Amino acid sequence: MPDTRSDGALALPDLNTIRAAHLRIAAHVQRTPVLTCRALDAAVGASLYFKCENFQRIGAFKARGAVNAVFSLSDAEAANGVVTHSSGNHGAALAYAASRRGIRAHVVMPEDSARVKIDNVGALGATVHLCAPNVAAREVMCNQVLRDTGATLVHPFDNVDVIAGQGTAAVELLEDADTLDVIITPVGGGGLLSGTAIAARSIRPAIRLYGAEPANADDAQRGFRSGRVEPVAPTRTIADGLRSTVSARTLAAIRANVAGIATASEDAIVRAMRMTWEKMKIVIEPSAAVPLACLLERSIDVDGARVGVILSGGNVDLDRLPWQPTP
Amino acid sequence: MPDTRSDGALALPDLNTIRAAHLRIAAHVQRTPVLTCRALDAAVGASLYFKCENFQRIGAFKARGAVNAVFSLSDAEAANGVVTHSSGNHGAALAYAASRRGIRAHVVMPEDSARVKIDNVGALGATVHLCAPNVAAREVMCNQVLRDTGATLVHPFDNVDVIAGQGTAAVELLEDADTLDVIITPVGGGGLLSGTAIAARSIRPAIRLYGAEPANADDAQRGFRSGRVEPVAPTRTIADGLRSTVSARTLAAIRANVAGIATASEDAIVRAMRMTWEKMKIVIEPSAAVPLACLLERSIDVDGARVGVILSGGNVDLDRLPWQPTP
Repeated sequence: MPDTRSDGALALPDLNTIRAAHLRIAAHVQRTPVLTCRALDAAVGASLYFKCENFQRIGAFKARGAVNAVFSLSDAEAANGVVTHSSGNHGAALAYAASRRGIRAHVVMPEDSARVKIDNVGALGATVHLCAPNVAAREVMCNQVLRDTGATLVHPFDNVDVIAGQGTAAVELLEDADTLDVIITPVGGGGLLSGTAIAARSIRPAIRLYGAEPANADDAQRGFRSGRVEPVAPTRTIADGLRSTVSARTLAAIRANVAGIATASEDAIVRAMRMTWEKMKIVIEPSAAVPLACLLERSIDVDGARVGVILSGGNVDLDRLPWQPTP
Repeated sequence: MPDTRSDGALALPDLNTIRAAHLRIAAHVQRTPVLTCRALDAAVGASLYFKCENFQRIGAFKARGAVNAVFSLSDAEAANGVVTHSSGNHGAALAYAASRRGIRAHVVMPEDSARVKIDNVGALGATVHLCAPNVAAREVMCNQVLRDTGATLVHPFDNVDVIAGQGTAAVELLEDADTLDVIITPVGGGGLLSGTAIAARSIRPAIRLYGAEPANADDAQRGFRSGRVEPVAPTRTIADGLRSTVSARTLAAIRANVAGIATASEDAIVRAMRMTWEKMKIVIEPSAAVPLACLLERSIDVDGARVGVILSGGNVDLDRLPWQPTP
């Protein structure tokens, strides 16, 4: 789908687009379960419904958007492959999506990425292009791959098809838990939150949507209030999936549909992550723990409500857990 | 149910008893999901169906047997409470079951048990009785509690109602995956394996059952071959839930229904546990990883088969994981 509408405004998907995406990706992604946990309900004072995207292909919801983008390409476009920059789950997701369509994927990664992440993207069949760990070097490398290959850029979140794909998790969540009062998702670049918000508000207009981000990376909260994309300084947060800044496109969708953006302390993020492992017996990554962290710190009021929480992913380094002292 | 039949033989449940147990416990335990994982299927060369008893109340299948035993008591018996000895999941399970019936539970635990385990049993409302960490001291303490209180002893596995309760997981597994060729469970004292074997063979006579235990605690394999309860020396295995020895009762059920007992190295147990966390994004304890460890080491031949695996529990110390070096 073109990224700009005929009237010049930034394009966004609607519920029909998201339902079409849901059909398009069905054969390539998991329908993930919705789990509940009385111990966490008691800790929060609400009824929580966890959409387990940590069980999704490549271990994160990002598979949805990447598959939708790759399978939305024409055959001619697809023949030249796809390219993106990501040191995280989107790179793996695009590699996975391309492998399902049998086309090439190029992933530009900073050369200081963890070896396991580089190997993982390579194992999914993508070509990894390492660059210096800064935005300028990344742009240069991306542009060079685009020129050399004619591949299509699939941005991690500032892309209509990606946003539509991310919105499909909310469609499933509301099929499985159709009386929700609230849905909360993590917000980094805003692809998941904007897709979720568009889908959920269309299906269930009275529902309240919240984004959750680390207090150390609160650009979405500031942008939500100011109406502008707010710069984010290089941030230190354990929730490494949420260091991106929202784009004008995702911010527009968020401001139109979301009740608020909450923040959580680093401490609460680690505590929420550990509680989820201990009480639910599932592995989630720090970014996925941020909504529960906001609930534990009471930065969102959900007293007695039925609350959907999208557990965005489960990719962690099992050699060192955030509650363990640094060796 | 009495522990000895009128003809003097050791009593065992049949499928009707297990189905009655299933109804009896339904309001107090979780119907746990059955999950699949392509990465593990590929590693093993079979289609695996994981019954997630790590999601069960108190984090282990033991809730099933304990609830069935407690709710099988007459009101007069129940009024005096229940007692058991356990440093592990059965103690927590009995405490939980008693709390659901509103009766007293006494749990005899060795004084060197992990503080978190003692606190956990206490938090479930049971009275903890600490004793010296040896069998003689345990017997003395148990007998004293029995005399003082008139409570009913609920043995961790050598008990017909407990075995019947443990068999209910297999009933659910075969409802959700009704074409299984094989089921594998861990075997320690043999309660889970004997209940599973009786239920599964009655529902699906052609199914093959296997027990899986650490090579370092191979008493079930030796007993399976010799036909006698084989002593087990104090053993060093990371699978701390599987250090018990089978009883004459569980061994009889196992020998009548099970195709074989396989063993796994400590290395393979740790590897299987980590693979399950990484690939399935779920938290399982070492004992629960033993069946997959046997499959990874090819000590059971399941090539191309549909294999049910009971993931017995998910209670681990998240401060130190077995693949991490000792500090």
